[in-house]
Amino acid sequence: MALKLSARGDIPPFIVMDVLRSANERAAEGEDILHLSLGQPDTPAPQPVLEAVKKAIDNEAIGYTDAMGIPVLRQRIADHYKYLYNQVIDPKRIMVTTGSSAGFLLSFLAAFEPGDKVALAAPGYPAYRNILTALGIEPVLIEAGPDERFQPSPELLDALGEELDGLIIASPSNPAGTMLDEQALKNIVDYCEQKEIRLISDEIYHGISYGMKATTALKFTDNSFIINSFSKYFSMTGWRLGWMVLPEDMVRPEECLGQNFFISPPTLSQIAGAAVFDCYDVLDEYVEHYTRNRDILLNELPSAGFGSLAPADGGFYIYADISHRTNDSHEFCRRMLNETGIAAVPGVDFDPYSGDHYMRFSFAGSQKTMLEAVKRLKNWK
Amino acid sequence: MALKLSARGDIPPFIVMDVLRSANERAAEGEDILHLSLGQPDTPAPQPVLEAVKKAIDNEAIGYTDAMGIPVLRQRIADHYKYLYNQVIDPKRIMVTTGSSAGFLLSFLAAFEPGDKVALAAPGYPAYRNILTALGIEPVLIEAGPDERFQPSPELLDALGEELDGLIIASPSNPAGTMLDEQALKNIVDYCEQKEIRLISDEIYHGISYGMKATTALKFTDNSFIINSFSKYFSMTGWRLGWMVLPEDMVRPEECLGQNFFISPPTLSQIAGAAVFDCYDVLDEYVEHYTRNRDILLNELPSAGFGSLAPADGGFYIYADISHRTNDSHEFCRRMLNETGIAAVPGVDFDPYSGDHYMRFSFAGSQKTMLEAVKRLKNWK
Repeated sequence: MALKLSARGDIPPFIVMDVLRSANERAAEGEDILHLSLGQPDTPAPQPVLEAVKKAIDNEAIGYTDAMGIPVLRQRIADHYKYLYNQVIDPKRIMVTTGSSAGFLLSFLAAFEPGDKVALAAPGYPAYRNILTALGIEPVLIEAGPDERFQPSPELLDALGEELDGLIIASPSNPAGTMLDEQALKNIVDYCEQKEIRLISDEIYHGISYGMKATTALKFTDNSFIINSFSKYFSMTGWRLGWMVLPEDMVRPEECLGQNFFISPPTLSQIAGAAVFDCYDVLDEYVEHYTRNRDILLNELPSAGFGSLAPADGGFYIYADISHRTNDSHEFCRRMLNETGIAAVPGVDFDPYSGDHYMRFSFAGSQKTMLEAVKRLKNWK
Repeated sequence: MALKLSARGDIPPFIVMDVLRSANERAAEGEDILHLSLGQPDTPAPQPVLEAVKKAIDNEAIGYTDAMGIPVLRQRIADHYKYLYNQVIDPKRIMVTTGSSAGFLLSFLAAFEPGDKVALAAPGYPAYRNILTALGIEPVLIEAGPDERFQPSPELLDALGEELDGLIIASPSNPAGTMLDEQALKNIVDYCEQKEIRLISDEIYHGISYGMKATTALKFTDNSFIINSFSKYFSMTGWRLGWMVLPEDMVRPEECLGQNFFISPPTLSQIAGAAVFDCYDVLDEYVEHYTRNRDILLNELPSAGFGSLAPADGGFYIYADISHRTNDSHEFCRRMLNETGIAAVPGVDFDPYSGDHYMRFSFAGSQKTMLEAVKRLKNWK
C-alpha cells in the first residue's frame, strides 16, 4: 500500500521552531543555552491580565464564542485604533483570530484564488510563502536588500513585471526590523489601489519601535486586510490570539470561513486580550526593556564580528549580514549553537535568495541574556 | 476599484453558529431561550483542570510550545489509548491541535492534492465539506439515510462509481448519533486499504455512547488519520484543543504544516488537557447526565410530534425526520425559535440532499432544559 503525501504537505519547516527544539534538547542536558532565536518576549502577560483570567476560570463557562470574537474584545480593539493611531474603526470590522497565524490563513483564503500571484519581500516571515503555497497561491518574491531597506516599493513591484493579485507588507519587518515611513507606506497603498492589488498589511510589531512610530495602512485605505497579534507588544505569545481589521465586504465571508475553520478563538485568551488594553503602562515598560537590549546588541555586535546590521527601526530583531564569515548561514548558526550555546536563526528561514549570507538575532529576551551573548560572541569570533 | 472576493471565501455559514447568535440576541432581550442547538456541554471542565490552569498562570511562562504539543500532554493522550481501547501508541505519533478544527485542516492539507476526491456521508459535519472545498478538494457526498443508519459502507462507496482519494468517517455521527460497530468499521478500513483510499476517522464523540462502545480505527490500521477533541467527552469546548494520531510518515509533514499554520496550540489549554486525564470519574458522571437527557428526549419527543428519530447510539444529538411537518427545515427551526424559544439546528446544515426534512436536537445541555423543551414542544405541536 502506497498512500501518498500531498505536495502541499511537503512544505519546509519553520526553521526557527526546529532551532528551538534543538536548543531545548541541549538545555535539557544541562547546557546553558542563550535564546536569541524566537520572537518571544520573556516577559509575562501583565498581572491584571492574569488576574482577569483566573477570575473568569472561577466564574464563567469557558464555552465557544461567536466566530468573530467576544463583543467586549472587538470593542477594545477598535478603541485601540483610536488610542494608538487616532483612527475610528467600526468594531464590526474587527475579527478576533487564533493568533495572527489564523489571520494569514483566513485573509489568504478570502482574498485569493488558486493560481493567484501574491508578492512579498524576501527576506520575510517564512510562513507567508509556505501558507500561500499550501493554498495553491503563487508567492512572487521581491528581492529587497539593504539598499531597499528590505522593503518593497512601487519601483520594485513594477520591476517584477508580473500581474499581481496581492501584496503582503510588514512594517516593522521580520526579520529585518526596517519600517516603511508614512510616505513610503502611502506610496505602496496608492500603487495597490491603482493596480487593484489586494494589500495585506502585517502590523504585528506595531507598538515596538525606536524613534519612528508605525503607521497603519488603515490611515490610507479601507480595502486592505490589517493583521495584528497579541504576541509581540502585548507579550502574550502562548495565548495564540490576534485580530484582523477587515474591508466591509469581507466581514461576512470571513465570518463563514472562521466558523468552519476554527469555530472560535480560545475563550480564555479572548478574556485575557480584553484585559490587556488596561495595561499600556506595563507594555510600554517592556518596550523600554527592548530598547536597552537593542542598544546592547547594536553597540557590541560590531566588535564581535557582526559589523553589517540592518536598521532595527522596530520589532525586536537584528538582521546581520554574515557574508564575510560564511556562505551557509544554517551551518553557521548550528556551529554557533554548538560552540557558544547561543541559539539564533539562519537567514535561509526568511530568504531563499540571499538568506545564506544573513542571520537573525532576537533581542526579545532578558538583558542578562544579551550581555552574556555579546560576551560569548566576542570570545568566539 | 473592484477588489474581488475569492470563490473559496464564498462558503456557506456553519448554520448552527448563526442559530446561536440569533438565539443569543433574543436571550439578550430577556427571552427565555432553551439551547438544544450547539454540541456544547453545559458542564465545565472538571475542577482539578481549573486548578491546574490557575497554578500554571501563577508559576509558568505562557509561551509558544513545540508545534506538536507539550510532551506531557502527548504522553497522556497516548496513555488514553491504552486506557480506553487497550491500544499502545507511540506518543511521537500524537499531534496536539487547536481543536479538531485544526486537525481537519492539517490532515486534509497533508493527505490531499487540489482536485482530489474525498467521500463523506450526508448528513455530516458541515465543516468537512466546507474546508475541503476551500482547499480545492472535491467532496463526494454519500447519501446515507435511515436504512444505512446514516453511515457509509463498502457497498455505498462502490455505488458512487468514483475513483476516491479519501474517505471521512465519523462514529458516532454528527448529526445522526449512529455508530459503526466493530465489524462495519473493519469492513470500511479494509476497503480503504485495498483501494488505497486515505481514511480520516473523526472520533471526537468517543467516550459518549449508550450501550455500544466506540472502536478506534487504530485497531485495524496505522495508515489513517485519527482526529479527536477535548470539546465533547472532556467538556472543554472553549479551550480549543484536540489531537491527531498520525501515520508514521505523516509526522514530519504535519509538524512543518503545524509550525507554519498555527505555530503551536494554545498553551494554557494544553496544560488543562494534560490535567483532564486525571478526571475520568467526573467525565463519566457527565456521560450519565447525557444518558438521562437522552432518555427524556427519546421518551417524550414522539408525543410532541417527532416520532421518527435516528438511533442515538453515541454523542449527544437526536436527528429527527420532520418530513411530515415541513419541506423547509430552516424555516421550521426559525419558527420553532420564534414561537417556543427553543434553538435547534435545521438538517440543511448537515445535508444538502435530504436536510430539508430533518432537524437536530442537542441534549448536551441541562436536564431542566430538556424537561422544559419537551413541555413546550408538546404545547406547540
